[in-house]
Amino acid sequence: MNYSMVRYILFRIIRVMGCLLMLPFLVALVYREYDSAESFFLLIVVTLIIGIVGSHIKPKSKVIYAKEGFIITALAWILMSLLGAVPFVMTGTIPNYIDALFETISGFTTTGGSILTSMDGIEKSVQFWRTFTHWIGGMGVLVFLLAVVPMADGYSMHLMRAESPGPVVGKIVPKVKDTAKILYLIYLGITLAEIICLFISGLPIYDAVTISFSTVGTGGFAVNNAGIGGYSTISQAIIIVFMALCGVNFTVYYFLLNRKPKEAFAIDEVKYYFGVMFIAAAIISLNIYRAGVLDSAGLSFHHALFAVTSVMTTTGFGTLDFDKWPMLSKMILCILSLVGACAGSTGGGFKFSRAIIVVRNARNELNYLVHPKAVKRVYMDGHTVEGTTVKSVSAYLGLYVVTFIASTLVVALDNFDFQTTVTSVAATLNNIGPGLGMVGPMGNYSEFSYLSKIVLMFDMLAGRLELLPIYIMIKPKTWSK
Amino acid sequence: MNYSMVRYILFRIIRVMGCLLMLPFLVALVYREYDSAESFFLLIVVTLIIGIVGSHIKPKSKVIYAKEGFIITALAWILMSLLGAVPFVMTGTIPNYIDALFETISGFTTTGGSILTSMDGIEKSVQFWRTFTHWIGGMGVLVFLLAVVPMADGYSMHLMRAESPGPVVGKIVPKVKDTAKILYLIYLGITLAEIICLFISGLPIYDAVTISFSTVGTGGFAVNNAGIGGYSTISQAIIIVFMALCGVNFTVYYFLLNRKPKEAFAIDEVKYYFGVMFIAAAIISLNIYRAGVLDSAGLSFHHALFAVTSVMTTTGFGTLDFDKWPMLSKMILCILSLVGACAGSTGGGFKFSRAIIVVRNARNELNYLVHPKAVKRVYMDGHTVEGTTVKSVSAYLGLYVVTFIASTLVVALDNFDFQTTVTSVAATLNNIGPGLGMVGPMGNYSEFSYLSKIVLMFDMLAGRLELLPIYIMIKPKTWSK
Repeated sequence: MNYSMVRYILFRIIRVMGCLLMLPFLVALVYREYDSAESFFLLIVVTLIIGIVGSHIKPKSKVIYAKEGFIITALAWILMSLLGAVPFVMTGTIPNYIDALFETISGFTTTGGSILTSMDGIEKSVQFWRTFTHWIGGMGVLVFLLAVVPMADGYSMHLMRAESPGPVVGKIVPKVKDTAKILYLIYLGITLAEIICLFISGLPIYDAVTISFSTVGTGGFAVNNAGIGGYSTISQAIIIVFMALCGVNFTVYYFLLNRKPKEAFAIDEVKYYFGVMFIAAAIISLNIYRAGVLDSAGLSFHHALFAVTSVMTTTGFGTLDFDKWPMLSKMILCILSLVGACAGSTGGGFKFSRAIIVVRNARNELNYLVHPKAVKRVYMDGHTVEGTTVKSVSAYLGLYVVTFIASTLVVALDNFDFQTTVTSVAATLNNIGPGLGMVGPMGNYSEFSYLSKIVLMFDMLAGRLELLPIYIMIKPKTWSK
Repeated sequence: MNYSMVRYILFRIIRVMGCLLMLPFLVALVYREYDSAESFFLLIVVTLIIGIVGSHIKPKSKVIYAKEGFIITALAWILMSLLGAVPFVMTGTIPNYIDALFETISGFTTTGGSILTSMDGIEKSVQFWRTFTHWIGGMGVLVFLLAVVPMADGYSMHLMRAESPGPVVGKIVPKVKDTAKILYLIYLGITLAEIICLFISGLPIYDAVTISFSTVGTGGFAVNNAGIGGYSTISQAIIIVFMALCGVNFTVYYFLLNRKPKEAFAIDEVKYYFGVMFIAAAIISLNIYRAGVLDSAGLSFHHALFAVTSVMTTTGFGTLDFDKWPMLSKMILCILSLVGACAGSTGGGFKFSRAIIVVRNARNELNYLVHPKAVKRVYMDGHTVEGTTVKSVSAYLGLYVVTFIASTLVVALDNFDFQTTVTSVAATLNNIGPGLGMVGPMGNYSEFSYLSKIVLMFDMLAGRLELLPIYIMIKPKTWSK
């Protein structure tokens, strides 16, 4: 294990955090929240000093392997969360550190589940920081670091792979550094586009910025009690479009920017993603319209599409309380939330590409049993999926189920109802935010015990980092020589 | 496709059914239920004539392949169910054929979920037939057929494999016919042992026989409204022992009978099966004792062990209404019911051996990521599990999840609560019987719509036959040339 490199990158993360905290500091100054500004300023100074001093000595060797890649990623995210929670405590917004940590992890992992029961009286700078964590976590801090820290390609790929979602992580361009830069530029571009659109649609600039952070990071924190339900239908429609866009594999945008529409539209999972989105929205809108939830067919489709996009991209915004919808609609939303978004997007969940591989592998197996001479191959995007990838996806599914079951058992100790117990785990492990019952769109996580909160924090991190880094970190064998 | 062989075996099944119906006919005579005796007699005559005439012409070729094996198995089970439902309708016990079919499929697949709301006034011969379906389905009709119909080993193995539960089906002895005979003899021996034990413990002979059928088949139908709760603690303890024994891989008994205890105890899944059983019972007994469900620690353990054994073996008997227990206990029971029993037992569920393979494959993957030079192998019972088996288990998991999701969506149309919707599918797909909520230990399936009942019937059959035969049967590609 290259400990000096682990140390070096972690201190670089602290430095980055110091810089990122400057943004909410500025917001505090603009809105004359001087007490909060003081807190942010103090924290910036301390983190920058620690970060700069700690990363002053360069590591002897920059050679890292997959193992270090996973461990650095897991530790970096934990460190970020531990630091990111401090402003909530310092400003007195969330006095309890465990609760503040829950909120921060929920932010960075783009889950969006909150322990806050009301947004009233929370300062604008703190709310800004809260939504900004979504934006930071959406694309990932290590990807950002890769864009700025010089590192050999072969090694930095281990970091990229560990942090990016999806069964197969490809470089868009030959160099990891350039790939990271392109990804962040696309990400920034989409964010700016949404801010402008929302502002034009009538949102105050503060709301336009913060809601855009929450949308493009597919997070789900809102900045007032009404959530997204308080905005106009036009603004909501803009949010639908940007949620949907951020659940797409970012490679698609790179292809589109480079005028390669053919390659962009050849990606299987993107086709399924949009196909499922519209079919589900159609079924739900019919279901809620017939159940009399809404009088207008048009509005039914609007809110159904909003809910579907929100859970598929694992954003978790809500316009209506879908916990009160008929069971079919709730179940569809529940299942879509498990599948999640596309690989290589900012969304969470099991990912469409993995689901496709699982289903195609099962279909293959059936064919094989009927025609034993048939070749057992899984295809995707017109190429064969390697056997090791199929095996990895299966291992991932196994690990996912085990995590789900173990978490449910601990949360069950709180003795809440079945729906709340199961969907709270599903909503955190898939980084959605709201579930059903007590944690429904109008509920929150404040009532859970500390033990449950810790398990749900674990699930949020495990879900965002796609299980492997967290499990490799806690495996004793990793640390033995 | 060897159609003549498919036809031949199906008519043999009809013949066997005719013979099996003689037992409830005799019971009807003993208890002087002459109307029912008439119904049974008529049905026996008709089935025997159809069966004997139809199977009179021997097939030209007895060569069948895996495909025919799966299709014969699927069709045989559907045929059995269609026939087995007739007595319920003819005797007027369940006038509606769809409901009668649900009850019969629930019987043959050893699910034990009922559409009957009360046992009052149901004739003894009909109740006998109802529990006898559990006994027939437990070991399987085709296995029985294999023991009596002369067939080449290589071909009959396809039938055995399609009907027997578990990821790898081995022959106990070189010949399939002998294996089938040995399995049925062990099965008969266990049944007789339980009848004697229950009779000595004070049960009337009728109850001793019918409850033994339900136990060894791991079914769950009881013969009075109090269920198993009405019997003495000693009788309940006997039922626990026999439930537990029937959830074990039957190979163990063959080894034990042949004085090979070393081989018997080397089977990994049996160790895990009993280990999990006692740990779960201990946790649940503590949980219900502390929650004040029962005053006595001893009785708490007794009822906890009963519930755990009942769901793990997917029998579904109930002594207490565990739907009223704390959420932790309910969740443990819920999860255990998904895992189910051992492969090669009469129990259902995902099976311990598959769960072990899934978990070991995931652990392997983690090791591989940390030590890329490590060899990726999954071990079980001291041997390497072949890559194709791992892939098949993964495919099975995929198919299982897809079936679960699709079924839940249809059942959601009935607009029952979340708990009922999810656990009704879990309880039928895993052949358990009771779930939680409306389908809890004291509930039943009578309120579901016909559409839901049809889907749940599909799930019961798919669960008992472990998905593949049913899916291969409904795949259009199977029938194309």
